[in-house]
Amino acid sequence: MSRFIVLEGVEGAGKSTQVRLLAAWLTAAGVPHVCAREPGGTPVGEAIRGVLLEARELDVPAATELFLMLGARAAFVRDVVRPALARGEVVIADRFDFSTFAYQGYGRGIPLEDVRRLNEVATGGLRPDAYLVLDVPVDEGARRQEAEGKAPDRIEAAGRGFLERVRTGYLELTAQDGRAHGVDGRGEAELVHDRVRALLESLFPETFAT
Amino acid sequence: MSRFIVLEGVEGAGKSTQVRLLAAWLTAAGVPHVCAREPGGTPVGEAIRGVLLEARELDVPAATELFLMLGARAAFVRDVVRPALARGEVVIADRFDFSTFAYQGYGRGIPLEDVRRLNEVATGGLRPDAYLVLDVPVDEGARRQEAEGKAPDRIEAAGRGFLERVRTGYLELTAQDGRAHGVDGRGEAELVHDRVRALLESLFPETFAT
Repeated sequence: MSRFIVLEGVEGAGKSTQVRLLAAWLTAAGVPHVCAREPGGTPVGEAIRGVLLEARELDVPAATELFLMLGARAAFVRDVVRPALARGEVVIADRFDFSTFAYQGYGRGIPLEDVRRLNEVATGGLRPDAYLVLDVPVDEGARRQEAEGKAPDRIEAAGRGFLERVRTGYLELTAQDGRAHGVDGRGEAELVHDRVRALLESLFPETFAT
Repeated sequence: MSRFIVLEGVEGAGKSTQVRLLAAWLTAAGVPHVCAREPGGTPVGEAIRGVLLEARELDVPAATELFLMLGARAAFVRDVVRPALARGEVVIADRFDFSTFAYQGYGRGIPLEDVRRLNEVATGGLRPDAYLVLDVPVDEGARRQEAEGKAPDRIEAAGRGFLERVRTGYLELTAQDGRAHGVDGRGEAELVHDRVRALLESLFPETFAT
């Protein structure tokens, strides 16, 4: 039975690892699924991704960054997510609109109500069935990223205040949205995977209980 | 005295020609001005322009096209229009948000209220002092474009229904917005220029009356 599941959280929270473990579990259980991540391989999304990467080096308005994300999202929803759901598959997404609310809203200070309305135009109103929000303290996320050689001096580069606002944003969003579920992201990946799996089995037994 | 003047209208209405004639007049009159056109030479705008050109060849959602335009607009407003106005110059823009309302709203059918709200985030609320909306019938606009070798089979390519909706959109927008002024775009360029000039002189005598 088709379900749209989104993994969210700050950098270093373990999203990609959990997506991988989740996919392995679903494959073993014979549940048809796709793992997706914006821009998701749509041609226009890839082109936008190029602009976003370039934009990091330039001084661009926060609104420009937001609109580029949303432009990619509109194509991602129409060309990747909706077709997979229509085929009856489970979609596991590594980030979705909570990232936009947390980073561009809480982090960059664009009014959250604006971000939500803009996002609705991009998604055409499609909402995930569940958000699993992996939470780790900012320092632990940064340590993990550094350990993987991904982002040395992560906190220095982004600014501690920014990263703390993003984390607080995720916590508030999770508290306020009935479809959002916090997951303790600390500890070994397998341990976190057990938490994710138990949560999905209890939320959607008809899809995930094996 | 700084003024933000926008020329609008369907393809072939004569916007670029009128911008050129207007600039020549202002130069002769010694009025400091800049002629601008989105993406307007901002680095991120140029990158977005590349994606938009590519997008024409692809099948992209109307919302994606809209978000790309708005992303370029946010940078255009912040980095081109506002600095020029702050220097006390007249800004003459070849298209602005009326184009988005007419093409993406009326033409592509994205709800106009959504387009307006999204646009406000992109402009940060900045509004032109005047829109001069050059009106020509769809057939005449297409004929002019074809005569210039710019867009053979324009009507066939875009669809007559689309172009008619865009023109109707411009007429409605002009009728409903106190800052918008229709200009008959038919006839010789010099004749249309006289209309444009008379209009600006009557609207803003302190800036334009020579």
